[in-house]
Amino acid sequence: MKDDASIQPLRGFRELTPEEFGKKAIVTSKAKELFRLYGYEEVEIPTLEPLNLIELKVGEEIKHRMFRFKDLSGRDVVLRPEGTISIARLMATKLKAISLPARLSYVANMFRYDEPQRGRFREHTQVGFELFGSGSVLAEVEILEIALRLLRQLGFKDFRVKIGHEGILRKTMSHFDVPPDKQDMLLGMLDRNEWDPIKSELRQQEKIELLGLLERLSGLKGSEAEAIVNEAKEVLKGIDGIEPLFDAFRQIIGFLHANTGNRVVVDMGFARGLEYYTGMIFEIYVKGLEIAVAGGGRYDGLCKLFGLDIPAIGFALGVDRLVLGDEAPEAYKEAFVSLVPVTEANYEYAFEVGNELRKKGIPVITEFPAKSLSSTMEKASKKGPKFAIIIGDKEASTKTVTIKDMRSGVQEVCTIDVAVRKICG
Amino acid sequence: MKDDASIQPLRGFRELTPEEFGKKAIVTSKAKELFRLYGYEEVEIPTLEPLNLIELKVGEEIKHRMFRFKDLSGRDVVLRPEGTISIARLMATKLKAISLPARLSYVANMFRYDEPQRGRFREHTQVGFELFGSGSVLAEVEILEIALRLLRQLGFKDFRVKIGHEGILRKTMSHFDVPPDKQDMLLGMLDRNEWDPIKSELRQQEKIELLGLLERLSGLKGSEAEAIVNEAKEVLKGIDGIEPLFDAFRQIIGFLHANTGNRVVVDMGFARGLEYYTGMIFEIYVKGLEIAVAGGGRYDGLCKLFGLDIPAIGFALGVDRLVLGDEAPEAYKEAFVSLVPVTEANYEYAFEVGNELRKKGIPVITEFPAKSLSSTMEKASKKGPKFAIIIGDKEASTKTVTIKDMRSGVQEVCTIDVAVRKICG
Repeated sequence: MKDDASIQPLRGFRELTPEEFGKKAIVTSKAKELFRLYGYEEVEIPTLEPLNLIELKVGEEIKHRMFRFKDLSGRDVVLRPEGTISIARLMATKLKAISLPARLSYVANMFRYDEPQRGRFREHTQVGFELFGSGSVLAEVEILEIALRLLRQLGFKDFRVKIGHEGILRKTMSHFDVPPDKQDMLLGMLDRNEWDPIKSELRQQEKIELLGLLERLSGLKGSEAEAIVNEAKEVLKGIDGIEPLFDAFRQIIGFLHANTGNRVVVDMGFARGLEYYTGMIFEIYVKGLEIAVAGGGRYDGLCKLFGLDIPAIGFALGVDRLVLGDEAPEAYKEAFVSLVPVTEANYEYAFEVGNELRKKGIPVITEFPAKSLSSTMEKASKKGPKFAIIIGDKEASTKTVTIKDMRSGVQEVCTIDVAVRKICG
Repeated sequence: MKDDASIQPLRGFRELTPEEFGKKAIVTSKAKELFRLYGYEEVEIPTLEPLNLIELKVGEEIKHRMFRFKDLSGRDVVLRPEGTISIARLMATKLKAISLPARLSYVANMFRYDEPQRGRFREHTQVGFELFGSGSVLAEVEILEIALRLLRQLGFKDFRVKIGHEGILRKTMSHFDVPPDKQDMLLGMLDRNEWDPIKSELRQQEKIELLGLLERLSGLKGSEAEAIVNEAKEVLKGIDGIEPLFDAFRQIIGFLHANTGNRVVVDMGFARGLEYYTGMIFEIYVKGLEIAVAGGGRYDGLCKLFGLDIPAIGFALGVDRLVLGDEAPEAYKEAFVSLVPVTEANYEYAFEVGNELRKKGIPVITEFPAKSLSSTMEKASKKGPKFAIIIGDKEASTKTVTIKDMRSGVQEVCTIDVAVRKICG
């Protein structure tokens, strides 16, 4: 039966061994440390959501690559493809009374019916940071700072930040009377680099000047950030109210430069697939992987859909993807002790000893008695313990233990306290 | 739009605020500490599984209460209702070469289309411990010990363990030539207390003696564990090979008694809904909740379905359910510092100060500048910080900070180092 394909994990789904999971755990535990240090309180959002919710703002691209179905009551439901929409709903409903700015976070699995490829899975884990209630440029700086710190503290050195501004693109389109739903559509096309549909759409709407501007903006990208932003500002100088957006954008880029040197790429034609972005957007790329490992941006209109009109910004990082990067941290196995009762009859004292060690924070793995002590010890040593603690009748009756240093092979009889000191020292 | 029911969380799904999540986080972090101390290595299993896999052994009851659907390729898939089947597959395939006994663990969400009620949700989080490759009674003892320790370390005092033995029931049925699939069916009926179908089934099969034995076993329950087990042994004394099962069961019960006093209820007619159990089974109940918060047992035949014939035992604990218990731990909010830049122009030094504090492990929440310092301070103080660190032009130019003790209201200008000492002291 084991070769029966019908019971193997579904294509693109992850079944992780301890070693594989250990790599992910390093990332999520570091993220959780930053949740704590920056005050992002963790919440939980449903894995399954109404289709109506997700379709509000998920965008055309993802809409067709979701796990959607009818539940037993006939309702259209979907395995969440991303977390921000659900978090925004939580913020605007159950949490609407908390004091702003509010910082929320999550670790959650997301689902997309993508064609599996390196770094792209049908189920994968995201960690997310969301900051609600501040339109200040300091919010942008904080979110970027956290994203960069997370990567750096995980040991990544060679990464690249791509930054753009959907607020500038939207403001430009609004100036030419493009309604919001058409803006979403055009930004989606921009994200997928579909210029033919953009051209036919804008020609049909007789917005040739706008098309020209978008084409010029899309040519403005590279690491000469300040020059590019100045040029874009020049290109758009006739657009009402565009200047403050550029001023803020320049501040953000200044921060990025101070923090990342020349690894920033500004792209004035950059858009992301999700429809809720309204301002600065960014993605992070690491060495050894083509696709972005993290992405985010400002999404000021999203909470309003749920009745609370507040600004917001956030980002998410793909954990399964990040651990594929060349500089990803290695999983490590902590030192531990093997507890070896000589016979089953020694179990009570053996368990007592095990728990004395565990009280001191020492991981203890019990090796159940095999045919002989030597075969039990052989099994134990295969697992690679630092010390073995052997418990026989003599140890049980004298309340001692035999401790064996597995590297040197030296063993001696001593009290539990002495053994603890040997193990910890 | 916020009142539109079509975008609210689905019935029975959980959308947790920081406070609600905080309670769950206490449970999962304590479980993870025990993963580490007992050597249970964490793995990940897919949220979505082939229907064929889960139907192998999930049992009649759950089979009809799953989220199942056809994916975009037309394949029958199911949101996992439990974790043991997937873990057993992982053990028997990708992990078949690791040295035994092997200890695996997980934290994962499970899905059942149950009628929501107190403690019963359509999505809920389970932590699980699984021990593969040992048929020793010490494995039973270890699993029970971990389950009890987890509850006790979480502050539960008033809980009850219900214990039974599906191995004894199966051995009895085998003696009367009941085939395994019929055993599964009868155990399922026993679990649901459906005596009429049991009677008609066994009468039809002309197994009146077996019916009599099952009825007598079902009457044997209570906290007089030793007497009950002796009586059951007497009832079944003609069954081939039943004695070693009773001997082992008595050892397990002896351990439970030594560890839990009189809170053990033995129930000789106890069966669980899942079809894979083959030996000792147990459930744990806490004060203030009708339904079990944890359950598990021995499942020696499951890995064999995937090509690896090894014994196994484990248990899982329902986190969402446990936190509803009367004695459940309270979430707590850690002490933190508010970082208050007077204007946006002070942000660079403010961020620098924030990161100095975070390097010492101190949580720092930045309060973005409002119209005036006093209104920023008012917003900050609403969140309940222990100290506020105020950064204005003067502080930035002299590389100092103004620290305010939010309880006493006393504030002073000092260096970052002195501030750290005040906060940590």
